[in-house]
Amino acid sequence: MPVNLTAPQASSLLPVRGVKLGFSEAHMRKANRKDVLVMTLVEGSKVAGVFTLNQFCAAPVILCKDFLAQKPGVRALLVNTGCANAGTGEDGLNRAKQTCDALGNLLHLQANQILPFSTGVILEPLPVEKVIAGLPAAIANLKEDNWLHAAEAIMTTDIVAKGTSRQIQLGGKTITITGISKGSGMIHPNMATMLGYIATDAAVSQSALESIIHYAVNKSFNCITVDGDTSTNDSLILMATNLAANAEITEASKDFITLRDALTEVAIELAQAIVRDGEGATKFMTVTIEGGRDVAECRKVAYAIAHSPLIKTAFFASDPNLGRILAAIGYAGVERLDVNALKLYLGEVLVAENGGRALAYQEEQGSAVMKEQEILVRVDLARGHASCTVWTCDFSYDYVKINADYRS
Amino acid sequence: MPVNLTAPQASSLLPVRGVKLGFSEAHMRKANRKDVLVMTLVEGSKVAGVFTLNQFCAAPVILCKDFLAQKPGVRALLVNTGCANAGTGEDGLNRAKQTCDALGNLLHLQANQILPFSTGVILEPLPVEKVIAGLPAAIANLKEDNWLHAAEAIMTTDIVAKGTSRQIQLGGKTITITGISKGSGMIHPNMATMLGYIATDAAVSQSALESIIHYAVNKSFNCITVDGDTSTNDSLILMATNLAANAEITEASKDFITLRDALTEVAIELAQAIVRDGEGATKFMTVTIEGGRDVAECRKVAYAIAHSPLIKTAFFASDPNLGRILAAIGYAGVERLDVNALKLYLGEVLVAENGGRALAYQEEQGSAVMKEQEILVRVDLARGHASCTVWTCDFSYDYVKINADYRS
Repeated sequence: MPVNLTAPQASSLLPVRGVKLGFSEAHMRKANRKDVLVMTLVEGSKVAGVFTLNQFCAAPVILCKDFLAQKPGVRALLVNTGCANAGTGEDGLNRAKQTCDALGNLLHLQANQILPFSTGVILEPLPVEKVIAGLPAAIANLKEDNWLHAAEAIMTTDIVAKGTSRQIQLGGKTITITGISKGSGMIHPNMATMLGYIATDAAVSQSALESIIHYAVNKSFNCITVDGDTSTNDSLILMATNLAANAEITEASKDFITLRDALTEVAIELAQAIVRDGEGATKFMTVTIEGGRDVAECRKVAYAIAHSPLIKTAFFASDPNLGRILAAIGYAGVERLDVNALKLYLGEVLVAENGGRALAYQEEQGSAVMKEQEILVRVDLARGHASCTVWTCDFSYDYVKINADYRS
Repeated sequence: MPVNLTAPQASSLLPVRGVKLGFSEAHMRKANRKDVLVMTLVEGSKVAGVFTLNQFCAAPVILCKDFLAQKPGVRALLVNTGCANAGTGEDGLNRAKQTCDALGNLLHLQANQILPFSTGVILEPLPVEKVIAGLPAAIANLKEDNWLHAAEAIMTTDIVAKGTSRQIQLGGKTITITGISKGSGMIHPNMATMLGYIATDAAVSQSALESIIHYAVNKSFNCITVDGDTSTNDSLILMATNLAANAEITEASKDFITLRDALTEVAIELAQAIVRDGEGATKFMTVTIEGGRDVAECRKVAYAIAHSPLIKTAFFASDPNLGRILAAIGYAGVERLDVNALKLYLGEVLVAENGGRALAYQEEQGSAVMKEQEILVRVDLARGHASCTVWTCDFSYDYVKINADYRS
């Protein structure tokens, strides 16, 4: 069950002026579920995207990057679940393109004004005819207050729909931000079968939007991991419709930071929701590394801990087998680490120092922390001032079950 | 259950002249099991060791390296299970030293002539008094044909004892090689809660012995992974007693390669046995990467595949979800990889080429291979002539169960 995560109320996902969402049941893989999503953007909207670094990136990712580079004025997004259209070569590109052509014909847009996204099984051909057959129904129900339906339409192994909204004031105008995400396995920094869509009605320059998306992704989706796998299809899209009547935000605006931080908060909440819904998750772990020489070495240690199946199974069992954490710190690859100087904390409890168990530490203290659903692992490397935080979940029987059975 | 692995017959593990083995039940962690092992070496034996690269290496590892550097003429090895004596700081060093002192007194040796080894739970103090109390019984039953008992005495979560022997001819003399190993979880290149002891009665120079152990470990223990964790205690020891009356083997001897390859064969068999007994393993996977620019990039791809929980659970389920393998190749970190040029094979079946599924591939072919207990995954990167092979196992419910329950 997801860790402290429930689906948002439909009413809590605020409409963003200029963004409409429509969905349909196209029987992509299973019956009776929404599996095609169409989003439309009012003319003049600005769009920025970041995508997986996986070299086997999916056909829709290749098209998205290509279309965004053409600066065609993106006016619609098309998402399907059930098939990732990845590992599909030239044929996959043609199929993704066909779906854009079809939606373009229906909406009177050029194909390159439509960004395509797919998530699901890799290495299978996209059933183009099913996607296309689903488009008229999706277009017919395009509405501004369909965000919850949209969040549901992009789910795969997700247990709960993920979405959140914020409102802020910029220059006396109320700005709305709403975002949705999906993903629960194959989650890793640099993202992984993770889709995220965040829209705002703020007026923002293209350059500021690009700056914000890179800042936000590094503070959010690039700080989560479920199983260390980086997917072929990860995409995060940030959209601004310019309808809020605020003065256009540029990187020089005094309100730039306000907007950036609000969008980043939404990205963090959506990213953490993915971990909370991690396949088989029963615990939400925050791994914070402090006192590093640079952020890179902090991240090495954080991910050594967050990826270790031995540590993740011990957390599942609420077993304070802390030696496994020390072992992970030891093999993380930090040069000339002084194992006698570092300190390891579980929650507020000092667990290890001077190269071994802290003298005052009692196993009951560790057990008490391990029984919580939200656990902080903190390491002070005691060699500098850099820090980082990574979020992950534990590793349970259900992780194996879900991933052994995924295609059956 | 271990994959195609059964414990050796006692008679199949050949005595090595000059090596005696004794064991006892010291109640280190559980009653009624051998948990202390003493090995003695005839005077004049040569010893070489390689150890974990984990910076949180255990106290006995620190002592072993220190003692070997002192070139004291190692005459005995002392192994305990139940406690790893790792993450134990200065106190752990003192405790390990005390056990060497005690065995030294009983055998009339200096403490630095004794190499200590521990395996078990990390971060707990070594119960020195239990180890010492177990020594007299172990010494009392020192015998040359106790290899199977020795293999059993070093087991932790291992299901079956691991050992093998070979005999070769060097210059008209019969040379015996016998080795034992333990380890089943936390297994990774550069070794991990893995102990290996290989003895031969050949006369070998110290320099040749060092050369052979590094060659052998790179072809064996550094090519296996169960869960990607590198332990604090891994040690491989190669011992040569000089009693076979052969002309001493140096790196210049014409028989050097013969001896090296025989010892390496033993090391490979012992290393593969650890994977076959991997925690919860139901499949033995060989991952071979060919056509790389260098071995380093081949290993990146091999380990990306061998470490992926998504791939390992799919193998457990006999599900030819080959897209997960393509995804792993894609995120392995090979620079400027041409995904359209590489080829992926499952067993003899060409699965993917031209960036997607091979035209002739039928899912039934993949399913048939996945149902086997021994599976070959082969990738041709098509960009050079380097290659590597890594062995791993699948990821099952039992892996989670074993590691969630390990300390209970």
